[in-house]
Amino acid sequence: MTPRGEFAWIDRLVELLGPAAPRRDDGEGAIGDDVAVLRGPGGEAWAWTVDGMVEDVHFRFDWLEPEAVGYRALAASLSDLAAAVAEPIGALVTVAGSAAAFEERIEGLYRGLRALAETAACPVLGGDLSRADGPLHLTVTALGRCPRGAPPGRGGARPGDDVWVTGRLGAPAAAIALLAAAGNDAARLAAARAHPAAERLARPEPRLAEVAWLAARAPLHALIDVSDGISSDLAHIADRSRVRLAIETAEIPIHPAALGAAAELGGDADRWALHGGEEFELLACAPPDSLAGVAAAFESRFAIPLTRIGSVEAGRGVVRRGAGPDAPLEPGGWDHFRVAPARAAG
Amino acid sequence: MTPRGEFAWIDRLVELLGPAAPRRDDGEGAIGDDVAVLRGPGGEAWAWTVDGMVEDVHFRFDWLEPEAVGYRALAASLSDLAAAVAEPIGALVTVAGSAAAFEERIEGLYRGLRALAETAACPVLGGDLSRADGPLHLTVTALGRCPRGAPPGRGGARPGDDVWVTGRLGAPAAAIALLAAAGNDAARLAAARAHPAAERLARPEPRLAEVAWLAARAPLHALIDVSDGISSDLAHIADRSRVRLAIETAEIPIHPAALGAAAELGGDADRWALHGGEEFELLACAPPDSLAGVAAAFESRFAIPLTRIGSVEAGRGVVRRGAGPDAPLEPGGWDHFRVAPARAAG
Repeated sequence: MTPRGEFAWIDRLVELLGPAAPRRDDGEGAIGDDVAVLRGPGGEAWAWTVDGMVEDVHFRFDWLEPEAVGYRALAASLSDLAAAVAEPIGALVTVAGSAAAFEERIEGLYRGLRALAETAACPVLGGDLSRADGPLHLTVTALGRCPRGAPPGRGGARPGDDVWVTGRLGAPAAAIALLAAAGNDAARLAAARAHPAAERLARPEPRLAEVAWLAARAPLHALIDVSDGISSDLAHIADRSRVRLAIETAEIPIHPAALGAAAELGGDADRWALHGGEEFELLACAPPDSLAGVAAAFESRFAIPLTRIGSVEAGRGVVRRGAGPDAPLEPGGWDHFRVAPARAAG
Repeated sequence: MTPRGEFAWIDRLVELLGPAAPRRDDGEGAIGDDVAVLRGPGGEAWAWTVDGMVEDVHFRFDWLEPEAVGYRALAASLSDLAAAVAEPIGALVTVAGSAAAFEERIEGLYRGLRALAETAACPVLGGDLSRADGPLHLTVTALGRCPRGAPPGRGGARPGDDVWVTGRLGAPAAAIALLAAAGNDAARLAAARAHPAAERLARPEPRLAEVAWLAARAPLHALIDVSDGISSDLAHIADRSRVRLAIETAEIPIHPAALGAAAELGGDADRWALHGGEEFELLACAPPDSLAGVAAAFESRFAIPLTRIGSVEAGRGVVRRGAGPDAPLEPGGWDHFRVAPARAAG
């Protein structure tokens, strides 16, 4: 039996929930989005998200320090808030793990949580602790207010829009490839953990300030964070917006650490940039020229690029556009329901 | 080395979080409470909670159907909202489990979630799914609005108040004792699962409507749900309110199913009622006579008793009051950081 993928399970569970899982025709707060959208006290829009992180599925302690695991867990939720143009209100954290995990790792986890909670002004307001045999589980739920109203979501891209991405991609997947290639060799593992790509895996930056700056300067019709791999996240926008995205894949900025790792390993940095997940960069669709005029100012303010990588057209799906004819760009992000992360990292 | 208990871990983690875990001198939304309290722009208070449930720690699939596990997980969060006099807005759910758990159990879990989501008007607005080896983990986070303002919390009990409890206690602990005593004997397990006490374990009722009714009729100075065992939850109020609670333990109403199970097993129904957890009944401190006048109307409306079980005095701690001299009432609820549930159930 072929295992069902995560998205097929979500569809099945929404069906089972029936009226208990409201489907919104306006796309606001639909299950499967990064956030649920609420009308907060006073009528303000609030964004709400939850992310579960499981040892040996989403992270490995021989690859990441506990500090990085805590930091990344909060970063995943804050990146969902960034994709909703939300300002963090706070987070609740649950940890379930063995006695040994509590003794050896929970203090590191909380130091990592604290580091990002402080820089992102997202206080930890509570949570729940459990003993559990087996892998450590960490869940972060975060709330944010949306000062600009309901988030654009994935469904608002319009033919004629341009497609933009923040930052440079590929480093987290490169780091995973280096770590996987190190196997159990302690010296190679230490070198992989010290590689510049590993810093992007350990300390990804949710683009909260960046998105607030952009949303104040341009109408963002669709917005998503690059958490499943940009090829998959482009497909989410194309599906939900019922448009075709034509992507000039040669324009996708590749992180120099990914290029370095590719040279060292003989890996494929283009593939890491296209299909690697947990980048926490943002992918935005906006009217032509609206972001073109601010890209230079963005880059000088935030020290990361803002790059036009394609355009939105009538049609369906995602295509690669370049010198030759268009070719389908298949979603290649890994689905942990089908592939273990270590195997997906190659 | 003696393992740290859950509350000691919470203290240590709050210390590690430092300024990232705001301590509120007014007691509102302090970490360790059932809920975090948020303020919207209109000044309305919202209550936010998260609860993690782990297979073989908080539940066992040989004791409970998947439907009951899903139902109880949402019930735990809704009970926290009830203790905050909040009306549910919605919930997010995470599930992490093996391929077999997804195939065999997740549909049942979601049928149970749906049943309570519908009766409690708490839609499931999203969540996160993960593959994970080891035990199944289920996390529910819920938000509610507090139409009567900030929740009373645990810290407002005043000398002179009376102590009240809704419903009848002891049945969930009795059910666990019956199930534990059945061991692997299939016939005894089936009988234990069909025992009236087991219905209270499988389908606990969060007291949302009851608390709204009470809060409209009496000032509730302190409020908590009986989730850790009433002896422990009384101690939480005494500690946070800096008062002494004098409890006439003979007045605590015992569920008839617990009395029945005690007769069958030779168990101690008083002990189950005092120290059993996950009752989801409410414990309230209110000025003298404020609830006395409505107890009969409460009982006729909700078909459960509202019982005065003691009073609040100057001092510290919790004492049993009866015919003889006062004696300390030690918190005896089980702490899964110290004792496995099957062993705690005897």
